[in-house]
Amino acid sequence: MSRDICIYLEFLTDAHRAQIQKAAGAAGFVPHFFTLDQFEEAKVCVQHCEVLYAHSPELLRAAPASLKWYCCSFAGVDPYCKDPSIFANPDCILTNSNGYGVTIAEHVVMVTLMLLRRMPEYEEVVRNHGWSNQLPIRSIRDNEFTILGTGNIGVNVAERVRGMGAARVVGLSRSGRAHPAFDEVLPISRLNEVLPKTKILVMALPGTAETVHILNRERIALLPADAYVINVGRGTAIEQEPLMEALNSGKLAGAALDVMDPEPLPSDHPLWDTKNLILTPHVSGNMTLGYTCDINVEMFCADLASYAAGQPLNGLVDRTLGY
Amino acid sequence: MSRDICIYLEFLTDAHRAQIQKAAGAAGFVPHFFTLDQFEEAKVCVQHCEVLYAHSPELLRAAPASLKWYCCSFAGVDPYCKDPSIFANPDCILTNSNGYGVTIAEHVVMVTLMLLRRMPEYEEVVRNHGWSNQLPIRSIRDNEFTILGTGNIGVNVAERVRGMGAARVVGLSRSGRAHPAFDEVLPISRLNEVLPKTKILVMALPGTAETVHILNRERIALLPADAYVINVGRGTAIEQEPLMEALNSGKLAGAALDVMDPEPLPSDHPLWDTKNLILTPHVSGNMTLGYTCDINVEMFCADLASYAAGQPLNGLVDRTLGY
Repeated sequence: MSRDICIYLEFLTDAHRAQIQKAAGAAGFVPHFFTLDQFEEAKVCVQHCEVLYAHSPELLRAAPASLKWYCCSFAGVDPYCKDPSIFANPDCILTNSNGYGVTIAEHVVMVTLMLLRRMPEYEEVVRNHGWSNQLPIRSIRDNEFTILGTGNIGVNVAERVRGMGAARVVGLSRSGRAHPAFDEVLPISRLNEVLPKTKILVMALPGTAETVHILNRERIALLPADAYVINVGRGTAIEQEPLMEALNSGKLAGAALDVMDPEPLPSDHPLWDTKNLILTPHVSGNMTLGYTCDINVEMFCADLASYAAGQPLNGLVDRTLGY
Repeated sequence: MSRDICIYLEFLTDAHRAQIQKAAGAAGFVPHFFTLDQFEEAKVCVQHCEVLYAHSPELLRAAPASLKWYCCSFAGVDPYCKDPSIFANPDCILTNSNGYGVTIAEHVVMVTLMLLRRMPEYEEVVRNHGWSNQLPIRSIRDNEFTILGTGNIGVNVAERVRGMGAARVVGLSRSGRAHPAFDEVLPISRLNEVLPKTKILVMALPGTAETVHILNRERIALLPADAYVINVGRGTAIEQEPLMEALNSGKLAGAALDVMDPEPLPSDHPLWDTKNLILTPHVSGNMTLGYTCDINVEMFCADLASYAAGQPLNGLVDRTLGY
């Protein structure tokens, strides 16, 4: 009996398909490829597959208990951890991709500079065909960053802002384990201590029970008035009501949110018109970037070889922790 | 007779004044400080000064032939080189500041990412409270840069984009002299050869007779359709009519201009409504950044010591070349 892989993804190039074909052959597997308009065909196929490589809660829910490994092509796996019944097989392995670090870090550098250099105000001037005096701005150089989450995204952000001369980059993670990309990594339990000294807070946390409203009203109040908040993890990590109040009243200098709660944001939501806020429609981890797709496929192929050899998988997610 | 320095600047802090006072004392000079609302007082003072530290063509024009050194607090000295009669003393030394590299490089990184990541399109979606699919984007990582001008600005841009993983950064300068910040530096005479291979063209050239319309109609046509143009030097370096045509017709992917011709841009100028163009009102070299001001004062004080000792000055400008 053949060991089958169902692959239901939009971003694959011919080169990616060939790469997967080769890795699958070497591991003793047969891959079956479907694009996103072939859901029904993929659903038929997944009935006899051991492995599924996709980002589709619907397709996963349709898979039988014989599915042993679900490789999610996204970094955020909260839809698969909140409700364990989505897996017919309670022991099904879940892996995710961490190839989003580069593109999300470039987004963070962009919005950080837009906030520090007051780009939304200049854009407003330019939209009205006007000229402007120079507004007081700030720099990444000699600035201080606090990064919540020291995974692939946090590390790529830290490397870039340090490369641009940031004075100090502190990471916070569950373990507080040191990492060379950061000047210091602290356990997330020390967050309240760090916030009053924070100039730029970058949030790159997974959506888990522990991270919901981690930046709540009390903690927003701990940030200095000249601080900026940037969130590229999950919208649920921030209590939005007090964030909007702080931005509208000038108790915070500004924010940039690529994620919010809910998504898509309803057209009458007050976030849209909050002051000093740059919103983007959850696009920082853009899958159109060749590099990101390449890493995604490479990670899957490497983990497929490990899986076939009974070795531990690099992208392994603890389904109870949620990352 | 005392040797006097007239200082007519807005950005100085008390610490900067103390620093200048100390350096002047050590060099045998007496500084006289004026803010921009004290033009008449500064004009009286400059009559007996040997040195002027300012950015004011009017004040320079009012200075007598006894002025021996004009230290311009800006990087761009074209107003002082076009018309030699602005100096009553034909042998007056002219120096400029190159402390703008960091802030202008941060501007370049910001607008490069905004262009590559299609930020203006997302901003339009967000202004209409809308959501959006992911647009195809590009990355600084693995991308190729051509930088016209390898001075302080060009070097700071090169260092930053290489730090973010750019595949190749080619500089072009008058001399073509190698510099470690670039993968290669070519003489500007080879520009036509480089343009067809250019993905992101950053222009950081001084305003001289040689740089006027250096990016003319023929050269704009040499750029590939997926290229971006960023200008932070002088607006006169680009022939604007063919640039607008190329942007509006999609023969160029996009551009970001912090400088244009003329400035301020008249409110009915067609540049305002050109497609895929990010305009900013000449703010990339923002003097509100503490770091930039600090460097400016440091450079002046160092050159003052050299001047008093009869040594060559670091910021020396060749008034006939214009930089």
